[in-house]
Amino acid sequence: MRYDGREPQQLRPVHIEVDYLKHPEGSVLITVGDTKVICSASIEDKVPPFMRGQGKGWITAEYSMLPRATETRNIRESSKGKVTGRTMEIQRLIGRALRAVVNLEAMGERTVWIDCDVIQADGGTRTASITGAFVAMAHAFNKLYKNKKIKTLPITDFLAATSVGILKDGKVVVDLNYVEDSAAQVDMNVVMTGNGEFVELQGTGEEATFSYNQLQELLKGAQEGLVELFDYQKQALGEELSGLITNAKKR
Amino acid sequence: MRYDGREPQQLRPVHIEVDYLKHPEGSVLITVGDTKVICSASIEDKVPPFMRGQGKGWITAEYSMLPRATETRNIRESSKGKVTGRTMEIQRLIGRALRAVVNLEAMGERTVWIDCDVIQADGGTRTASITGAFVAMAHAFNKLYKNKKIKTLPITDFLAATSVGILKDGKVVVDLNYVEDSAAQVDMNVVMTGNGEFVELQGTGEEATFSYNQLQELLKGAQEGLVELFDYQKQALGEELSGLITNAKKR
Amino acid sequence: MRYDGREPQQLRPVHIEVDYLKHPEGSVLITVGDTKVICSASIEDKVPPFMRGQGKGWITAEYSMLPRATETRNIRESSKGKVTGRTMEIQRLIGRALRAVVNLEAMGERTVWIDCDVIQADGGTRTASITGAFVAMAHAFNKLYKNKKIKTLPITDFLAATSVGILKDGKVVVDLNYVEDSAAQVDMNVVMTGNGEFVELQGTGEEATFSYNQLQELLKGAQEGLVELFDYQKQALGEELSGLITNAKKR
Amino acid sequence: MRYDGREPQQLRPVHIEVDYLKHPEGSVLITVGDTKVICSASIEDKVPPFMRGQGKGWITAEYSMLPRATETRNIRESSKGKVTGRTMEIQRLIGRALRAVVNLEAMGERTVWIDCDVIQADGGTRTASITGAFVAMAHAFNKLYKNKKIKTLPITDFLAATSVGILKDGKVVVDLNYVEDSAAQVDMNVVMTGNGEFVELQGTGEEATFSYNQLQELLKGAQEGLVELFDYQKQALGEELSGLITNAKKR
Amino acid sequence: MRYDGREPQQLRPVHIEVDYLKHPEGSVLITVGDTKVICSASIEDKVPPFMRGQGKGWITAEYSMLPRATETRNIRESSKGKVTGRTMEIQRLIGRALRAVVNLEAMGERTVWIDCDVIQADGGTRTASITGAFVAMAHAFNKLYKNKKIKTLPITDFLAATSVGILKDGKVVVDLNYVEDSAAQVDMNVVMTGNGEFVELQGTGEEATFSYNQLQELLKGAQEGLVELFDYQKQALGEELSGLITNAKKR
Amino acid sequence: MRYDGREPQQLRPVHIEVDYLKHPEGSVLITVGDTKVICSASIEDKVPPFMRGQGKGWITAEYSMLPRATETRNIRESSKGKVTGRTMEIQRLIGRALRAVVNLEAMGERTVWIDCDVIQADGGTRTASITGAFVAMAHAFNKLYKNKKIKTLPITDFLAATSVGILKDGKVVVDLNYVEDSAAQVDMNVVMTGNGEFVELQGTGEEATFSYNQLQELLKGAQEGLVELFDYQKQALGEELSGLITNAKKR
Repeated sequence: MRYDGREPQQLRPVHIEVDYLKHPEGSVLITVGDTKVICSASIEDKVPPFMRGQGKGWITAEYSMLPRATETRNIRESSKGKVTGRTMEIQRLIGRALRAVVNLEAMGERTVWIDCDVIQADGGTRTASITGAFVAMAHAFNKLYKNKKIKTLPITDFLAATSVGILKDGKVVVDLNYVEDSAAQVDMNVVMTGNGEFVELQGTGEEATFSYNQLQELLKGAQEGLVELFDYQKQALGEELSGLITNAKKR
Repeated sequence: MRYDGREPQQLRPVHIEVDYLKHPEGSVLITVGDTKVICSASIEDKVPPFMRGQGKGWITAEYSMLPRATETRNIRESSKGKVTGRTMEIQRLIGRALRAVVNLEAMGERTVWIDCDVIQADGGTRTASITGAFVAMAHAFNKLYKNKKIKTLPITDFLAATSVGILKDGKVVVDLNYVEDSAAQVDMNVVMTGNGEFVELQGTGEEATFSYNQLQELLKGAQEGLVELFDYQKQALGEELSGLITNAKKR
Repeated sequence: MRYDGREPQQLRPVHIEVDYLKHPEGSVLITVGDTKVICSASIEDKVPPFMRGQGKGWITAEYSMLPRATETRNIRESSKGKVTGRTMEIQRLIGRALRAVVNLEAMGERTVWIDCDVIQADGGTRTASITGAFVAMAHAFNKLYKNKKIKTLPITDFLAATSVGILKDGKVVVDLNYVEDSAAQVDMNVVMTGNGEFVELQGTGEEATFSYNQLQELLKGAQEGLVELFDYQKQALGEELSGLITNAKKR
Repeated sequence: MRYDGREPQQLRPVHIEVDYLKHPEGSVLITVGDTKVICSASIEDKVPPFMRGQGKGWITAEYSMLPRATETRNIRESSKGKVTGRTMEIQRLIGRALRAVVNLEAMGERTVWIDCDVIQADGGTRTASITGAFVAMAHAFNKLYKNKKIKTLPITDFLAATSVGILKDGKVVVDLNYVEDSAAQVDMNVVMTGNGEFVELQGTGEEATFSYNQLQELLKGAQEGLVELFDYQKQALGEELSGLITNAKKR
Repeated sequence: MRYDGREPQQLRPVHIEVDYLKHPEGSVLITVGDTKVICSASIEDKVPPFMRGQGKGWITAEYSMLPRATETRNIRESSKGKVTGRTMEIQRLIGRALRAVVNLEAMGERTVWIDCDVIQADGGTRTASITGAFVAMAHAFNKLYKNKKIKTLPITDFLAATSVGILKDGKVVVDLNYVEDSAAQVDMNVVMTGNGEFVELQGTGEEATFSYNQLQELLKGAQEGLVELFDYQKQALGEELSGLITNAKKR
Repeated sequence: MRYDGREPQQLRPVHIEVDYLKHPEGSVLITVGDTKVICSASIEDKVPPFMRGQGKGWITAEYSMLPRATETRNIRESSKGKVTGRTMEIQRLIGRALRAVVNLEAMGERTVWIDCDVIQADGGTRTASITGAFVAMAHAFNKLYKNKKIKTLPITDFLAATSVGILKDGKVVVDLNYVEDSAAQVDMNVVMTGNGEFVELQGTGEEATFSYNQLQELLKGAQEGLVELFDYQKQALGEELSGLITNAKKR
């Protein structure tokens, strides 16, 4: 058993509160254990310059932490005057992951701005961001669809993310909290579609390495956790919207 | 009656949820109508260079908005690489206001970092920030006091803020929401102590002016609203902590 | 009597030298005691993007200090690569104040750039900037008017500013110099029109508070000082231009 | 066969020129097809602040491209005044990867600065950087070792990197050049030790996904390519230095 | 004759007003025709990090223009967030030039900060800055010397600068104003000591070239102008201080 | 004889490798002793905003050093977030120098971007950059000319640069390496056309001065060195392209 009483394969409690904010087209507050992220999806009726005139849309993501989301207060990136490498890496990951399940042609020349703001951090903020942002984005697209601005929901499948890791004692665990994450030998983030296909796989041995067999174990653990996360997403999306995505997936 | 059905003197519904975050020494989520601000108070055991060796503490504040706190998404200041003039003005105001009711000597060589993060904006974000930050700061100081790191609670009085304004039709109203604020001829922010003394008074006619008599009316409106806000603060502080502040005030 | 020999209500010697610079449409060197500010007004035949197509003009202000305007050399903001919060607050104040006495429609789609550069600082630089900038702006508009680019002088009233404060001994004084300002309990800047209406009121207790009665005293002091400042402005504007403004005011 | 005539499993021609620069402790020019990277390793006798006093060293990496390394000139990051997200992601990857095969305790309180400057780019610049930087770093450590500043060579194994991908036609190929990379459905970078253990695995489907079986094929392709790269590294390190690393690995 | 009525060898009217500012150790307002520069010299009792512990002092210079010093308003460098190449080039030149006539050992571990702020520009701002800054610096050093903080005046000779150029018609002229400067084929700045030795020579053909013979003519013109400038400096320094410098020069 | 065995008038070994890079329109690797610079010339079919609609082209240059081009690693300007004064001065010099031998009208509304990246530094990097950049630019223009995009080669003469200096012992030497440069009393960079006309002359006494006679000696030394450099350029340009330039020069 893990120090917080969980089984190796057990996720922390997950909750997704939809329509958390008044202004954005889609928004959720996702809670995974003590990690809390506000994810919003804003639709803009134009695309960035490098995409213009191609009849396609774009998804772009920004990620940030409140200064006191963490145990020790971290300095605001706006005060530092620049965004850290870690933040850039995460926001590129979120945008890329979401684009993998969106039909950019079907969304028209629009941009979806995803904002993931970590209110409280306890490990797994980037994977919670992806899982929550997917729901926010689906709600935002649904609004466009209901207003007949687009003919089909431009989402091709569900998408969620979780972390897996190898602890110091060699145990493979899923959904690491901050304490586990800091001490893990190997940390892997897995982004997967509802179909079980990989979208992104980022495994890192920090001052450590991992074998082919360990990799297989990590992937198995991730997959089991992700199946549960898709269920939480479906609840947050409601039957009708989930149905639309499930059907899209079959086509 | 105002367009949202309020009387001229009526505040919007106020709610202050304490201990909203896990990590900071003090934190609240303050809700004033549709305006929601997370205020946290973090204690650091040193002071900024310009204060060192004086045996005094310091209060500093930072203010920010989530990109989608507003109706139209605003660009993150971290992306722009600099903090706007409006943000700087507000964070200077918050810090200055709080310092007016803190005995800096009694708090020792410590810094209190106040973070006000606007989750949702509908007018009055700076005054809600001050009202909420006071409660977060009091809780943070109380923690120090209970842990016997300081001998007395270094707070000398309650502190809250509200806005008053003159609408286009000349009516004086209190606690303006965004629609009223955008259209007001005169906008005034008043920061006051529990004792009824002014800490800060910022009245501005945007492309308009106001007379001495109108000023008196504005001040009267503000004072009435602030009396109510002190009650909300007392509820959020609890009887014991409120009592400590009330007693300090008498000394 | 004050330590520099002035009466509580006495302004420092004021001098406004017009057409101080060769290139700008309007410019003055305003001297208030040892405080010296070069104020220039430059007219540009377009407005910022957010104002375009509304048939209105805009006034924008910038404020800066020479590094050795102060007793201790201060680092240039261009070397720091960013403008401080104090500077931003002041330049927003100057622009806002001037716009209150300008008919933006009557000036056409033009921008007036106000530059206030403090050559020597001894307290009250922001109020001297406003008082001087008004004169520079009036001269610049007069040039447009004489060249028949605009049909009326788009100024609706005189505008000046001064500071008032409460010293440690409780005395209310007007036009604080640096030594007084540093030690004052309460500091208030008042921007007023020739008509006696308030445009901006910023009262601050730094680690102190002030009562309703003290506020009334401060306002009275400010008003008396401002009456004198309007006279200095009229001299600097000349009879003809002063007359145009006085008439506008009556309409 | 691939459009440049290679077999799916075939690397581009690889050349590693050692001691390419005069000043650094270690340096190489690595050529992989038309991709050319200058990698240098500089030893500094102190560690960054967050590492001080732990008796351990640190490896940090910087990555950059000449403006005309690419087909279209890209703007210098120094002109833009900031480093892009892509650059940050790559330099974090290079540093993390190298640290996995270095015994930080054995290197003492020193920093190795790795600089990877891409002179000419044709795909695979980050993997060429890792492969080349390992050789430069080993030479730099060897200099310390020969000068008796450290007792053992603090390297625990060889380290190289390559890319694998799935082309539009579903074919799995190794060491993608720019044309292949731009068109690939899936792109994976694999960093491996001489022992065959993974250090980093980054697989990305850009607007596409990949299955478990495809992942296995990709890993197999990467492993075969990496075996060849270790041979090129051994030639560039020479027999003696390669021997030291091989022995360390066995311990 | 030149278009403003001067002879080719004739300088514009020069005036140097000493002790122009209240706070700095030395300050002048130098006027050369319509070019006006405030030069101040501030003494700081420490040197920059790279000079520490060498028992020597340092001279550093900063240069800036008021936005409306020029015919068209130029954007403040503090607003742009960075200093232009032109500004950097000029401030490096001023510092380097002054250091050539200062005995850095004799001034002790101090920094002289030179600030040259152009109030009004009409060509030759950099040469006027050097000529004026020398006088400000000499006064600042004299203050140290009179206060017995240094044993000798650490200045080894006079220093002044002027411009020479070749106009479109091939005429060689001295002290170009803005109109001449903009149209000149060749522009040369000459910094010289009282002794007639060169300190800095910067000749530039903008889209043009100049021959060896033309160079000799330019140098002759500069030398004649500089002799006059040394006289203006002596007047501004006064007899006593000029005498000290003249004597130092002879040693 | 000099400490590296050269005669006072002797250049270091020079080598210019043409077409060093695959992508740019023109590129060379120039080697002058241990100084190595990659110079590339990129042609863009538009001009900067301030040049538009004049029917003329523009030449702009950027200069940078690899962090480990120097004996001690220097911090990347992209990490610092700004370009140093030295870099700006050098890139302005390179651009200005090249423009002096280009017929901007004849090149059409195009920009030539010159990039000089110092791979290894041992003194004279700016003069090597100019000498190399001229060759790269000529090749780039030749490509345009051969593709009939321009009617004539828009180059009016050869252009090269070298340094001359006065060592501590008073000896005048040409082409200083880093050790000589650091210790020289006077350092002068001379940019000259094939015709023997000056384009740029920058002589600096760092904490020293130089006489009229020394200046004549320096100029003579520079001229002799430059004659040799023109020969190296002709070899690198080939007979045909050299011939075109020689003929242009005669016109």
